[in-house]
This record gives sequence, C-alpha cells and structure tokens, in this order.
Amino acid sequence: MTQTAPRRAMLTKADAQRQRVVSESVEIFSRRGFRATSMNEIAAAVGLSKPTLYHYFRSKEELLVRIYSDVLDESLEMGRETVAAAASPLDAIRDLISSRVAYTCHNQALLKVCFEEEHELPAELSAEVLSRRRAFENLFLTAVQEHLEQHPGLNLGMTPSIYANMCLGAVNWSYKWFRPAGPSTPEELGRQMARSLTASIDPAFVRDKAH
Amino acid sequence: MTQTAPRRAMLTKADAQRQRVVSESVEIFSRRGFRATSMNEIAAAVGLSKPTLYHYFRSKEELLVRIYSDVLDESLEMGRETVAAAASPLDAIRDLISSRVAYTCHNQALLKVCFEEEHELPAELSAEVLSRRRAFENLFLTAVQEHLEQHPGLNLGMTPSIYANMCLGAVNWSYKWFRPAGPSTPEELGRQMARSLTASIDPAFVRDKAH
Repeated sequence: MTQTAPRRAMLTKADAQRQRVVSESVEIFSRRGFRATSMNEIAAAVGLSKPTLYHYFRSKEELLVRIYSDVLDESLEMGRETVAAAASPLDAIRDLISSRVAYTCHNQALLKVCFEEEHELPAELSAEVLSRRRAFENLFLTAVQEHLEQHPGLNLGMTPSIYANMCLGAVNWSYKWFRPAGPSTPEELGRQMARSLTASIDPAFVRDKAH
Repeated sequence: MTQTAPRRAMLTKADAQRQRVVSESVEIFSRRGFRATSMNEIAAAVGLSKPTLYHYFRSKEELLVRIYSDVLDESLEMGRETVAAAASPLDAIRDLISSRVAYTCHNQALLKVCFEEEHELPAELSAEVLSRRRAFENLFLTAVQEHLEQHPGLNLGMTPSIYANMCLGAVNWSYKWFRPAGPSTPEELGRQMARSLTASIDPAFVRDKAH
C-alpha cells in the first residue's frame, strides 16, 4: 500500500503529460500534415525538451499509433454503449449515426488526422487497426440486419453492408464541412442526419404500396 | 494549312505524353502518397528522361494542380450535363448522386489523391480550387431548393446545405470502400444510393401524415 500509492501518483502525472503531447500533436498534424511535422516542433509546442518527449514517445510513428488506438478504443466503447442503451435496432442505427456525427464534429482535428494519415501507420499495425474499425462497422451492420429481420416487408434496396458504408461515409465526411459557427450544434446535426439516412428503412416513413 | 497540320500533330503527341504522365502519377501518388514520391520515380514509371519529364511539368506541384484541375473541370461539366438532362429537380438530385458515385468508383485512385492530398496544393491555388468545387456543390444545392419549392409539404429536416454535404459525403466516401469485385457495378451502386439518400424527400416515399 505504501509502495503503490506514490507509484500511482507518478503514473498519473506521466499519463497527463503523455495526453498533453497527444493533444498538441493532433493539432499540429491536422494543420501541417504528419510528414511535414518534426518531433522538434512537437517538443516546442508542448514545452518539453526533446529527450523528455522521446521518453514518452520513441518516434513520431509511435505517437500516430497512440492517436489511432485511442480513437478506435473510444469509438468502439461508445458504439457498444449506444447499442446496449437503444430500445430497438432502428434506434440503435439512429443513435450510432447521431452519436458518431456529434463525436466527429467535436473532434474535427483528431478525425482529420485519422482519416488522412492512415497510410503513415506502420505496415505491421494497419491490419490490427483495420480489424478494430471493422468491429465498429459490425455493430452498425448487426443493427441493420436485426431491423430488417423485424420488418421483412422493408426493401433496403442494397446490401446491408453497402448501406452501412453509405451511412458511415456521410457521417465521417462531416469532419470536412462542419463549422462550429454554423446553425446547428453537433448533436442537432447528428439527429437530423440520423432521421434522413434512415428514412428509407423507417416503417413510419415508407408507404406500404412502394413495395 | 501546310503549316498548321504538323503543328497540330505535334501538339497531340505532346498532349498524349502529358496525359500518360498524369495517369502514372495518379497511380503512384495514390499508392505511396504525394510527399513520398519523387520526380525521378515518375520519370522511371513513364519511361521518360528527367529533363523530358520537366519539359512537361516543371514540378511535382504543377502535376498535382493539373490532376485537381482536370477532375474539377470534368466534374463540373458532367454535373451541368446531368442537371440539364434531368426531367425534374428530384431526378437531377438522383442523377447527380448516381453519376458521381459511378465516376468515383471508376476513378478510385484519382479521387483518393484529390481527397487526401489537398493540403499539398500551392496555397495561392487552394482558393481557386475551392471555388470550382463550390460550383459543383451549388448545382446540387440548387436542385434541392427547386425540389423543395415544388413540394412545399415536404420536411427536409435540415438546411439544404447540410443535406447536400451529407449526400456528397456519402458519395465521396465510396472511394474508400468500393471493391470492383463486389456484388454491384458502380452504376448499380449509384442508383441504389440515390434512391436511399432521397427517400426522405421523395413524395412517393413520405407519408403525408408524417408532417
């Protein structure tokens, strides 16, 4: 007990420092691009000496991997909670869309780095990153399949996988066009897009005679 | 006449050579990234000496500008023709979506370069590129506004501008996930997505009582 308490405090301080490095790097990478940024600039921005920065992250690549890893972990956790809390598969689809839009708009710089610098990830990690992203996409896909099973009269008009790609594409692209000064908050945007993207599979929207 | 004929033939040969450089560059940039590619590699891939390559393009940046410029010109022309040929604003919206998906899927490497390397454009050109892209987006936006004017009972549930961003995001993202070996052709995918994305504003889909 007397040994672990101070050790924990030290870990916490190191964690906070590491988190500060990650946040500053995201800002710089999103503005200047990963390749154009040096570890020197990151050290200067965070106010650390270069050796101290290298103590936290041995390379720029390690930093990028940490950024990706955090986003994927957070996304998957949020996705699982969203699905677990939803009253129906259709609600799960809508809530996944709206929470994802809100997250993207609140973390625009972070998502820009993730979407535009993926080819900079070390090759041996790309497969692992891809499989964690697939886990999130599968949450969405499963909700779509369950909804269609509940409503066999609905005509999706495409494979569930294409529908998932289409919806997540519309959602992800918001990192490019969202403006915080615009007329809608990230949460409002999320609800608006969720309603529109699910219109074709909402039993309350679709005329029976259309099928 | 005797003078212009050979001159035209020479221009045509130079144009063909230039086009070959552009096509090869797109392939290499999309695989390795713009920054990581050298003019040496491009010269080797096209089978030209470095001086000959520099005769066609004075720099890698000039090549990138040409790639962007070609895509924007072609997109705007296709967009205008699509709108002009459409029987109604709703058809224009659908045809813009479906032709754009087909174009994106047929030119995946080209669109990857355009979407991921935009920050590499010379700063003085970014504004010009942005204004030509806006011209395409405005074609879409105008069709949405005209459709809503024709059907005042419809509830878009968001601003026309957000709807345009949402649809074009879904369309553009297809460069990331389209697989030529998949179950649908680019043209089929386009029609499927157009139907789904316009369900919320299709008078034949929407129940009157929903409003």
